[in-house]
Amino acid sequence: MSKFWSPLVRDLVPYVPGEQPKMANLVKLNTNENPYGPSPRVIEAIQAELGDSLRLYPDPEGDQLKQSIAGFYGISPRQVFLGNGSDEVLAHIFQALFQHGEPLLFPDISYSFYPVYCGLYGIEPRIIPLNDQFDIDPEDYRPPNGGVIFPNPNAPTGRLLSLADVERIVAVNPERVVVVDEAYVDFGGESAIALIDRYPNLLVSQTLSKARSLAGLRVGFAVGHVDLIEALQRVKDSFNSYPLDRLALAGARAAFDDRDYFEQTRQSVIAERERLTCGLKQLGFEVLPSAANFVFACHPDRAGSDLARGLREQGIIVRHFNKPRISAFLRITIGTPEQSNALLAALPALLGNR
Amino acid sequence: MSKFWSPLVRDLVPYVPGEQPKMANLVKLNTNENPYGPSPRVIEAIQAELGDSLRLYPDPEGDQLKQSIAGFYGISPRQVFLGNGSDEVLAHIFQALFQHGEPLLFPDISYSFYPVYCGLYGIEPRIIPLNDQFDIDPEDYRPPNGGVIFPNPNAPTGRLLSLADVERIVAVNPERVVVVDEAYVDFGGESAIALIDRYPNLLVSQTLSKARSLAGLRVGFAVGHVDLIEALQRVKDSFNSYPLDRLALAGARAAFDDRDYFEQTRQSVIAERERLTCGLKQLGFEVLPSAANFVFACHPDRAGSDLARGLREQGIIVRHFNKPRISAFLRITIGTPEQSNALLAALPALLGNR
Repeated sequence: MSKFWSPLVRDLVPYVPGEQPKMANLVKLNTNENPYGPSPRVIEAIQAELGDSLRLYPDPEGDQLKQSIAGFYGISPRQVFLGNGSDEVLAHIFQALFQHGEPLLFPDISYSFYPVYCGLYGIEPRIIPLNDQFDIDPEDYRPPNGGVIFPNPNAPTGRLLSLADVERIVAVNPERVVVVDEAYVDFGGESAIALIDRYPNLLVSQTLSKARSLAGLRVGFAVGHVDLIEALQRVKDSFNSYPLDRLALAGARAAFDDRDYFEQTRQSVIAERERLTCGLKQLGFEVLPSAANFVFACHPDRAGSDLARGLREQGIIVRHFNKPRISAFLRITIGTPEQSNALLAALPALLGNR
Repeated sequence: MSKFWSPLVRDLVPYVPGEQPKMANLVKLNTNENPYGPSPRVIEAIQAELGDSLRLYPDPEGDQLKQSIAGFYGISPRQVFLGNGSDEVLAHIFQALFQHGEPLLFPDISYSFYPVYCGLYGIEPRIIPLNDQFDIDPEDYRPPNGGVIFPNPNAPTGRLLSLADVERIVAVNPERVVVVDEAYVDFGGESAIALIDRYPNLLVSQTLSKARSLAGLRVGFAVGHVDLIEALQRVKDSFNSYPLDRLALAGARAAFDDRDYFEQTRQSVIAERERLTCGLKQLGFEVLPSAANFVFACHPDRAGSDLARGLREQGIIVRHFNKPRISAFLRITIGTPEQSNALLAALPALLGNR
């Protein structure tokens, strides 16, 4: 550690994103990207913005994009906060709404960026184990806390909590903010955005990286009561006035405006998830029922790390977490039918039952 | 204030960026944007990246862009840190390198985001007045401190500190990081990047928003010793794995690769600055010698606020800061010759000496 570092830096344990390999021709099923590209209208919208106007700053508030998102969900633009990917949105949430000197509650098996944000902002985590079926039990989220956060569907399990159960967690914590991280909700969940007008302590975050096929553009947002949005806005305006560039604002807006493409591609992913789940089960895998664009699967006869390594040698990349309770599992992104077929064809040899 | 806010949020005094008006046909000389659009090679590079690959995450490290920047300055890519605009870079610098429990030194007349970052990260500011000529005196930067930061050329004054004077400040603070914020250096300054191999406590930040004509793309960077870069990297990887999108990475790289266009446009801005300075002086203005893409000017007979309002009524927007010592001044961005002519034509009526 350098003497120049703020003391905080020494103790940070940064998040490690899924690998972005620079080789071509991989079957890349490791970072939950959409196998389908963005809507053609996204490309056209970016194209229209691409030119001399790049010399000018973007709209610091992103008003037009807020309107598109608000229109999609039937809410007010004042209930929308924008960020440079939902990770930035989450970071601002931790700083703006979770620093109360009491522990933040989140599941033990969950998005591994949450404990990192706790480290960055000096928030004590209180880890709540999922139950034996890898589900969130709403009853577990009653202890005194400085806030609650969980993904729904959860990652990396893919398990969905019903909207009624989400509401139970929100309702028993009226003095604290409950954040539902809905990165994957469009692949089978019901959004808690439906509840925001009834619960001033509910904040929902989403991303355009998954169901909107725009991981490469970095756009995320949060939706909730205007008081919560104002807190995020104050932190954002104290951090970076212009987090979204002109091209990202234009592309994201078009993604929300093209409902047909969104509907069609997410249904394709859902259908392929069910087909891949069947295929994996036929090979003897246990596959958790998933509402996301990935499945979480393990095999009784082979270690997850061995399978991940074996697939990699065949140019197929999936994600393996060397962590308690889940080290037997692989998290496999739903790709195209061709990618699923490649995976299903590669596995028998690794399982020794060819 | 909402009970849900972290206590920090209540006390934040967010930065207020220059207005981004939504009316057309303005002579917009208020936010120091480049009057010339980005290089045609930037547009081509973004075009080439625009398509299906937007569904994939960008390179979290931005290695190719780091190589282009390093190549331009003759340094190692390991000495480069990238961010979503230099404001994000500065925010990470404050958190990673200035939290030492001692006051941060910066000039009284300077980039007004510095005190905002102090508020966000709990750093005590110690404001050092510029001298009577609105210059930084290196002798003033000797008190015990937790770090030093200043823009060079300074904003909004446009005044340049010589590289020898920058080095004096760096040399007398060997135990603390000195950050030189070079947003405007390409319009007449000498970059302190030349000193980084000799001073492990020196960090230089730059942006592509000004001389590279890419305010709308949000790319900034810092250059310094690998230990300082590592601190920033650790904070970045604890905040947002992918701060730069695919299009921004591609465009920024092309901006560094097209040296001819960069040279030609910045020389045009410099030439126009000198012409506008003469024109303003002929109208009786005092104009501080500027090394930036703006001038800071006041008139003995008219208040700055009156002039700004009068210009606005004629569709010309400049920036006025209602702050001690500088309320008489206007900060006027260097535009095209046509924009300067419009400004110079509008002023006599406001000065009452038509």
